[in-house]
Amino acid sequence: MRGVALYIRSQTDRRLDRHLRDVSIIGIGQTPVGEHWDKPLRVLGTEAVRAALADAGVECPEALYVGNMLSGQLLGQENVGALIADHAGLSGIEAYKIEAACASGAAAFRTAYMAVASGLCDVVVACGVEKMTDTLTDETTGALVAAADAEFEGEHGLSFVGINALLMQRYLYEHGYDRQDFSGFAINAHRNAANNPNAMFRKKISAEAFARAKIIAEPVSLLDSSGIGDGAAAAVLASADWARAHGKRQVRVAASAAATDAVALHDRDDLLFLRAAWLSARKAYAQAGVSPKDIDFFELHDAFTIMSALSLEATGFAERGQGVRLAMEDAIALNGRIPICTMGGLKARGHPVGATGMYQIVEAAQQLLGAAGANQLPNCRLGMTQNIGGSGATVVTHILERAG
Amino acid sequence: MRGVALYIRSQTDRRLDRHLRDVSIIGIGQTPVGEHWDKPLRVLGTEAVRAALADAGVECPEALYVGNMLSGQLLGQENVGALIADHAGLSGIEAYKIEAACASGAAAFRTAYMAVASGLCDVVVACGVEKMTDTLTDETTGALVAAADAEFEGEHGLSFVGINALLMQRYLYEHGYDRQDFSGFAINAHRNAANNPNAMFRKKISAEAFARAKIIAEPVSLLDSSGIGDGAAAAVLASADWARAHGKRQVRVAASAAATDAVALHDRDDLLFLRAAWLSARKAYAQAGVSPKDIDFFELHDAFTIMSALSLEATGFAERGQGVRLAMEDAIALNGRIPICTMGGLKARGHPVGATGMYQIVEAAQQLLGAAGANQLPNCRLGMTQNIGGSGATVVTHILERAG
Repeated sequence: MRGVALYIRSQTDRRLDRHLRDVSIIGIGQTPVGEHWDKPLRVLGTEAVRAALADAGVECPEALYVGNMLSGQLLGQENVGALIADHAGLSGIEAYKIEAACASGAAAFRTAYMAVASGLCDVVVACGVEKMTDTLTDETTGALVAAADAEFEGEHGLSFVGINALLMQRYLYEHGYDRQDFSGFAINAHRNAANNPNAMFRKKISAEAFARAKIIAEPVSLLDSSGIGDGAAAAVLASADWARAHGKRQVRVAASAAATDAVALHDRDDLLFLRAAWLSARKAYAQAGVSPKDIDFFELHDAFTIMSALSLEATGFAERGQGVRLAMEDAIALNGRIPICTMGGLKARGHPVGATGMYQIVEAAQQLLGAAGANQLPNCRLGMTQNIGGSGATVVTHILERAG
Repeated sequence: MRGVALYIRSQTDRRLDRHLRDVSIIGIGQTPVGEHWDKPLRVLGTEAVRAALADAGVECPEALYVGNMLSGQLLGQENVGALIADHAGLSGIEAYKIEAACASGAAAFRTAYMAVASGLCDVVVACGVEKMTDTLTDETTGALVAAADAEFEGEHGLSFVGINALLMQRYLYEHGYDRQDFSGFAINAHRNAANNPNAMFRKKISAEAFARAKIIAEPVSLLDSSGIGDGAAAAVLASADWARAHGKRQVRVAASAAATDAVALHDRDDLLFLRAAWLSARKAYAQAGVSPKDIDFFELHDAFTIMSALSLEATGFAERGQGVRLAMEDAIALNGRIPICTMGGLKARGHPVGATGMYQIVEAAQQLLGAAGANQLPNCRLGMTQNIGGSGATVVTHILERAG
C-alpha cells in the first residue's frame, strides 16, 4: 500500500510533459457482434480495420495495435498483430498485440495514442478483436478465468461469473438492496441496443423478464450478465496537426489513463471499491481538466450489472452504495442525467472480450460525431469510456471530445 | 505489396517528430534462465522488476509493460500486467501485457519507450517473462506454433522447428552450404554463455559435437536450436532529462523500430529474405543516424542457426547468402568484426520466448555499461538488438548507445 500512496501522489501532482502532442480519432469501423462462424479472427479484424481506414480516407497507416485476450487459449494463435496487418493488406507496418484481459481493447487504443502522442507516428490504427463462439461454452468459460488469478481463484473452481456474484452478494448485503434493483442496467442496455444494427441482442426486455431470468451464480442472473460474441472494432488515430493539415474530421482524445489493482479479490482491501477505476478516472479527469459533471455520457464496462454500479461509484457519478440508484431512477437513460451504454453496452451490444474496449471508443466517437442514429444524444461534447480487465484489476479510461 | 511499397517510402522519407523526447535505460535486472519449477510466473517477473528498480534506485515507476507470449496457453493466466505489478508491490500503476510471439519482450520495451518518449511518463519498467517448463514438452511445442499461422501451418502439423527446417533446407539448396557450416553460431553462443552466470547452458561445445548432434527436423539439429526455459528480464526507462536531473547512470535508446511480414511462409515472396528484419533495421539506422559499420555488437535472434544467418543478411552485416560465412570465419566472436550473442544468445543463455527480447536489451546494456564481466567488449559504444516473432513475422530492432 505504501507504493500505491506514493504512486497516486506522483501521478496526480505532476503535470504531463509539454512534449505531448494532441491526438485525434479520424476514422472508425466495426463489425456486428455475433456468432461469426464463417469468419476467422483475421477476417473480423481486417473488416474493422479496413472500415476504419476507409472512414478516415487513409490508405497506409504506420502501425496497428491489436487488443485481444483469448486468441492463444481458444484458437492456438498468437502473433495476431502481424497476422491481421498482413490480411488487411498492410504487411510491413509495425504491429503487435496488447492484452489486459477484458481491457485489452482500450489498452490497444492507449498504445496507439502513445505512438502518436510521442511523435513516433502520425497515423496509426487501434483494433480490438475477439472470436469466442467457435469453441464449446465450457471451454470459453474456462478460458475467461484467465482474467482472474488462475492459481488462487481459477484453480479452486471460481469462475468469472462466480467472482462477480461474490461482489454483487456483498453489495446487496452491505447496502441493503434487492437483486431486482439492478434491473434498470439491463433494461437500459437492451433498449439502446434495439436501435444499434451492430448489437447482438436487439430486443427490449422488461422488469418482469429480469425478475424471471435464470440465476447463474446467486445472485447473478442471465440478464445481469453480458453475452459473449465474436466481433472487431477499430479506430484510426492521427496527430491533430496532421489531421488538420489533411482536412480530416476529428474527435479529440482529451485524456487517456490506465491503472491496476490486485487481480485476486482476496488481495483487495475493499471489495466494493474499484480502486483502479477510481485511479484511472482521476488521472483522466486531471489530464482533460474536467470533472464528472462535465461528462455528457459514459460508456462503462457493464460485463455484469454489479460492475456498472461499482464503476459509476468509482468514477464519481454516484456516492458509495448509490450507483445502483442511478439505474433505479433511470438517470442512465439517453435522456437521463448520465446516459450510459448508449449503443447497448456489453450487456446487449455483446461482449467479445478483447474487442469491447474498442467498441466503447467507436460508439463514443459515433455520439460525438452525431452518427449515433436513433440513439443520438443532443449536443454532447464530452464522452468517457471505461474498460475493465478482470473484476477491476486493469482499468483503462478515456475521455473523448467533440472537435470545434 | 502496393501497401508495403507505400509504407516503406513513408517510413524512410519522413523525419521523426521534434516532439520526441530522449529516453534512457537507467536500471536492469534479470533472473537466471532455467527450469524454475519452484517459482510461478509472477515471482519470476517480480524478481526481474525489483532487481531493475533497485539497480536504478527507483521506488515507484509510473507503468509496467510486460512482454509475454504463452501465459494464456500454458498457464491459463492472462492479465499478467496487473498480476506482476501487484506482486512486485507496485499495484496501482498502469500495467498490461504485450504479445508478439517471440518478439514480445522487445515489443514491451518499445511500448515503454513510447510511454516515456511521448511525455506521458517519466519513469517506467519493461519486463519480459516466460514460464515454459512446468508443462509437458509436447504441450509446450504445440503452444509455440501459435507464433506461426495456426490455421494454415499449425493445423497441418507443421511445428515451429519444422518451419525453420524448411528455411534452412532452402538456404543450403540455394547457396550450396553444408549444415556443418552453421556450427560456428552454436559454438560462439556456448563459448560466450560459459561466462554468463544467468545462462542456461554454460558449457562450451565443439565442432565435432555439433556434427554428431541429433537431427530434430532435417537439417535442423539439437545444436542448431535454442533451448526453451523459464526466466525474466527487465529494464527501467526514463526520460534523459529526468535521468540527468536525478543523477542516474544512463544507456541511451538511440533507436526503436518495429515492422511485420506475412506470418505464413507460403505468403512470402522470398523465403530467405527477412523483410521485417530488414525494414525495422533500416528504420532504426535512420533514427539513430548510423549504418551497420557503426554497430559494435549485435544481439540477434538465434532461435535457430538459420535465423542468425538471415538476420545478419537482412540487417546489412552480410550480403545475401553470406551470413553463414561470418560464423565460418568466426567474425562473430567477441574479438571479431561483429560480435553477436555476447552473453550466449538464445542458443545458450536460453530462450524463454516472451522474455528473450528483454534479455537481449539487458545484455546489450551490460556491455555498454562495462558490466559484462569476462565477456566485456572493449570500447563499445553502439549495440543493436533484434527480436524476431514467428519466423520473421514481427521484428523489433533497437540501437542502444553508451552515454558520454
